[in-house]
Amino acid sequence: MSYLEDIPIGEKREIGRHTFTAEEIKTFARQYDPQRFHLDETEAENSHFGALCASGWHTAAWCMRFIVANRERMVAEAEATGTPLAKWGPSPGVRELKWLKPVYVGDTITYHTEPLETRPSASRPQWGLLFVRHTGTNQHGEIVYSVIGSAFVERRPGAA
Amino acid sequence: MSYLEDIPIGEKREIGRHTFTAEEIKTFARQYDPQRFHLDETEAENSHFGALCASGWHTAAWCMRFIVANRERMVAEAEATGTPLAKWGPSPGVRELKWLKPVYVGDTITYHTEPLETRPSASRPQWGLLFVRHTGTNQHGEIVYSVIGSAFVERRPGAA
Repeated sequence: MSYLEDIPIGEKREIGRHTFTAEEIKTFARQYDPQRFHLDETEAENSHFGALCASGWHTAAWCMRFIVANRERMVAEAEATGTPLAKWGPSPGVRELKWLKPVYVGDTITYHTEPLETRPSASRPQWGLLFVRHTGTNQHGEIVYSVIGSAFVERRPGAA
Repeated sequence: MSYLEDIPIGEKREIGRHTFTAEEIKTFARQYDPQRFHLDETEAENSHFGALCASGWHTAAWCMRFIVANRERMVAEAEATGTPLAKWGPSPGVRELKWLKPVYVGDTITYHTEPLETRPSASRPQWGLLFVRHTGTNQHGEIVYSVIGSAFVERRPGAA
């Protein structure tokens, strides 16, 4: 995990890919988004989506899972090379979350992350805010999901 | 489900409340957000959160569940009174999603919905976009979650 000043702005990185199954789509939907086009194939065929598709929050949740896995890989890399580890704080939220296309049964979504910008924190001089664009792209090359996430990241010692 | 023109702008309505348990927090986190402060009490105590707390995406997912339940109630009310049912389309996304406070084990979050504004669709004259603020408030009266959702809603016949 890099210090705020060492984060490679504009560097896009694949963080993982997942194929959505009907069973998994229905399990998530039963718990958190029980709309007919997320629960039943026939109902979905008669809806505006035309086929069973995943809850948008399900697509977003898989993105989070890969963000966590990516951070774990970065921590492991830093530890392996003896690089100092910056502290990462909580996320205050996300903006511009877009569900651009449905995610249908059998679609494989590849998630990417790309640091967009950093900003020093006015109230906490040792910390800054990092904004990152996360996207999910299907097997046809269409972006189905896009969001700008944020997180508090420690500044390099002496940078403040 | 009302037509776009009949939606009561500014009318805040409670849509449901949920108490988050440790087991449920860990189950969601294992699948979608396996960070230590969502998975293990001791690790959480040593984190910046100070105690086990829910993934922000878990808080968001419960909001979606209550949004769906609220729509089902509105459909049932309309059917019971013979009110015409407007079509509601997909959501293109959300904006300004904020996790303002952690949701700890045992916290009861009450979700509210408040229509903010409507806008006719330029490309599809029979449809408009509805923007709604959804919030989650804990038992201390603190807003822990806030987001502005959007959805396509059919316009009243003849309104376009």
